[in-house]
Amino acid sequence: KSENTKELHWQLNDSGKKRVTLSDFRGTTYVHIREYYEKDGEMLPGKKGIALNPNEWMQFKRMVGEVTDALGLV
Amino acid sequence: KSENTKELHWQLNDSGKKRVTLSDFRGTTYVHIREYYEKDGEMLPGKKGIALNPNEWMQFKRMVGEVTDALGLV
Repeated sequence: KSENTKELHWQLNDSGKKRVTLSDFRGTTYVHIREYYEKDGEMLPGKKGIALNPNEWMQFKRMVGEVTDALGLV
Repeated sequence: KSENTKELHWQLNDSGKKRVTLSDFRGTTYVHIREYYEKDGEMLPGKKGIALNPNEWMQFKRMVGEVTDALGLV
């Protein structure tokens, strides 16, 4: 009974070294925003990053427009 | 000439322990998604977190809807 069968990911830059991934842990799906590194041709999760639970993700989602405005981006 | 005069932040949970902050470093504004901890009544940035440059932020912004869908949230 593996907890890691579902491992979707999105890349935040061309190098693919920063990623958003979903992973299940004890019945809850967390959104990880994390740096990866390459080892033997494989991309592995590094130490820099953070995991958000679904509530934190929804809170995050609500503030994305405001953060973008504050950055001065469109 | 301080680089830290602009320090906006948003809270991701009620405890305020996970935050999104903007901070300037060498002329570029980064979005930090980071855990904070309390010390002597002050909230200080902890080790768990990641910084996104403006390009990475915009890439991230584009995938927020897709991540939310994948989470099965509205």
